[in-house]
Amino acid sequence: MTQVHRRRFLRRARDIAGAVVSAVLAPRAAAAIETTKYQGAPTREYGSRSRFETLKRWVMPTRYPSSSASWTPLGDLDGIITPSALHYERHHAGVPDLDPATHQLTIHGLVDRPLEFSMKDLRRFPAVHRICFLECSGNGSQEYRGPTSENVQQTHGLTSCADWGGVALKTVLNEAGIRSDASWVVAEGADGAAMTRSIPLAKCMDDVILAYAQNGEALRPEQGYPVRLLVPGFEGSISVKWLRRLKLTASAYYTREETSKYTDLMADGRARGFTFVMEAKSVITSPSAGQELSGPGYYEIRGLAWSGRGKISRVDVSVDGGESWRQATIHGPVLPICHTRFSLDWQWDGSTSTLLSRCVDDTGYTQPSRRQLVQQRGENSFYHYNAIQAWRVDSAGVVHNA
Amino acid sequence: MTQVHRRRFLRRARDIAGAVVSAVLAPRAAAAIETTKYQGAPTREYGSRSRFETLKRWVMPTRYPSSSASWTPLGDLDGIITPSALHYERHHAGVPDLDPATHQLTIHGLVDRPLEFSMKDLRRFPAVHRICFLECSGNGSQEYRGPTSENVQQTHGLTSCADWGGVALKTVLNEAGIRSDASWVVAEGADGAAMTRSIPLAKCMDDVILAYAQNGEALRPEQGYPVRLLVPGFEGSISVKWLRRLKLTASAYYTREETSKYTDLMADGRARGFTFVMEAKSVITSPSAGQELSGPGYYEIRGLAWSGRGKISRVDVSVDGGESWRQATIHGPVLPICHTRFSLDWQWDGSTSTLLSRCVDDTGYTQPSRRQLVQQRGENSFYHYNAIQAWRVDSAGVVHNA
Repeated sequence: MTQVHRRRFLRRARDIAGAVVSAVLAPRAAAAIETTKYQGAPTREYGSRSRFETLKRWVMPTRYPSSSASWTPLGDLDGIITPSALHYERHHAGVPDLDPATHQLTIHGLVDRPLEFSMKDLRRFPAVHRICFLECSGNGSQEYRGPTSENVQQTHGLTSCADWGGVALKTVLNEAGIRSDASWVVAEGADGAAMTRSIPLAKCMDDVILAYAQNGEALRPEQGYPVRLLVPGFEGSISVKWLRRLKLTASAYYTREETSKYTDLMADGRARGFTFVMEAKSVITSPSAGQELSGPGYYEIRGLAWSGRGKISRVDVSVDGGESWRQATIHGPVLPICHTRFSLDWQWDGSTSTLLSRCVDDTGYTQPSRRQLVQQRGENSFYHYNAIQAWRVDSAGVVHNA
Repeated sequence: MTQVHRRRFLRRARDIAGAVVSAVLAPRAAAAIETTKYQGAPTREYGSRSRFETLKRWVMPTRYPSSSASWTPLGDLDGIITPSALHYERHHAGVPDLDPATHQLTIHGLVDRPLEFSMKDLRRFPAVHRICFLECSGNGSQEYRGPTSENVQQTHGLTSCADWGGVALKTVLNEAGIRSDASWVVAEGADGAAMTRSIPLAKCMDDVILAYAQNGEALRPEQGYPVRLLVPGFEGSISVKWLRRLKLTASAYYTREETSKYTDLMADGRARGFTFVMEAKSVITSPSAGQELSGPGYYEIRGLAWSGRGKISRVDVSVDGGESWRQATIHGPVLPICHTRFSLDWQWDGSTSTLLSRCVDDTGYTQPSRRQLVQQRGENSFYHYNAIQAWRVDSAGVVHNA
């Protein structure tokens, strides 16, 4: 760093940090550091988190615990990788206990050669990797008709992001030989729901992955162990877990999960189906509902943005309910179809403030307001809720869902 | 995908996959899928891996278990993120059990205002995030005088890669006010070794992070919980864990860990000190020693490359002991000071073959051979071993360290 650059940096850093110190830093009596006097714990073959850490997924109370979901604590996480232990879950009949030594994936239907693959077979194909988010299309749906949830874990926690690894589906489909009359792939899971979804063949030949790895190691059981589909940018339920079967067909199957569920009832009484793509969305994770500011002063507004169509290109933040907006800093790496961090420096003056974030993706799509979304889709919609989220900071510093 | 592009793709895919199918794919009797008949396990607040997964760190047997290390199983992992439970460990007096509610970081020495920070204070500063590798400077040192280790976990497993989060150290140092006579920062850990290292101030004002997060959640205990230094590109021991103290000084401290240890004895009997940067290195993780090929046919050669100086710009692979080289495919995202995946298609003809990989980083530095390294440093060196690794595949398909 040259001297000139360093001076310029120091000046900016002082502007930011000076604000922090005035609020929180006061010399304290040094605590006795007993840990330097003793040998600590030895190495371990497989680690676990500190006994002081208690973050957990939020599990919605349901009558049938095996058809349930759990939400990622977005307000308490850092970076873009969601720890596998805290990745959101959604399953319709619980998590099956599959043995990778006997699990098989069948590919049949409109193919030249029906084939069965063991997990060992799949690992012989060229491997692909991708850092990518998955989001349930029901994420935030309870907010469609107004604020109801207590915190950002409940409003937005059905999205998570991981480093996925596996085989490009196109490689395996070509192995079976695709007949010219095939245009859909019907995927079936080995769970109690035999979860079944239809996927356009064109998407399967583009970027779909037969994923067997998550954040370096094998998929977690609740993420489809030993193999799942990963359909980048599409609603989560398409990424069928515990994958046992892919059937190439001439048309979609119109299963339960693409008729009575995972369709959007529009204002005119008709339902949209096969609304695959998760459009751009952002949320301020801090300050967010349930958190409390310790008094007027400096705060870093932090959040996440993501789009099923590509990269996040811009995020704007308002602290006055949309009267004015400032452009947030986007933190790299900015990857397509991936959680992306943003931040903005904020001096809170102690008055009631309404915080909003609004993102734009590289297709030019801008995240809508709730009003815009309702205008477009009517009052009866449920899935694919991606409106701007408002948090209200009251004069006591308590943050509310607004 | 247009029809023309699709045809071109199919042709290439058939070339690759046709080779796989001939080796491994044969129709099998479909196993009965019992799991579709029952409800599975319910959601969980904090997940864990499948009972069928047994990957573990390799712990070297030592006389004093608290001064030990554990190695990442690089040959069995996917993607670029190392699961926190399998991130390599190195500690000199075991893992202390620190309570984040009472842990404090002191900054003193040549500063305007000595300060103490709680973990809560540190989290108030603007946050930064970075996907970055850490490597022990002793990684592979036992190979300096020829092949000794059994597998890639032992030869190269003292490197791991994670999504780190924390505060830029420069922000916090500016808070204390840096006096003009300061040019080093001495960092001390709260472990039984009170691990102490000197770091040039210029590096601290560049990209060093006070890290409190690893792969989304809090640091793991063996990675320095609740706060460590992350010094990108420098040898791992500089990234002092369980950080309790930073003292700004006019010169380095020449502690035990930068005199009797972590220095390189050269051919002329003098020792190089403060050899911070981990130079570019690559290794083929599959096929690698201890693995066995199932017979002649298609294999994907897979590996990792990384450089403490920047991005990996090129990897070449030889299957004939260096007679000829082919350029490998580099898989994105390619990030600076980060593990980077490469691969190359290989048709094994069943004859004895020696596999090598050689990487180049974006400074133009090329990974050396063992002979070149010994010529440069002499026979007595130990740390910073980054030579080209050879694996020999014998005619039975068994892979050896060569």
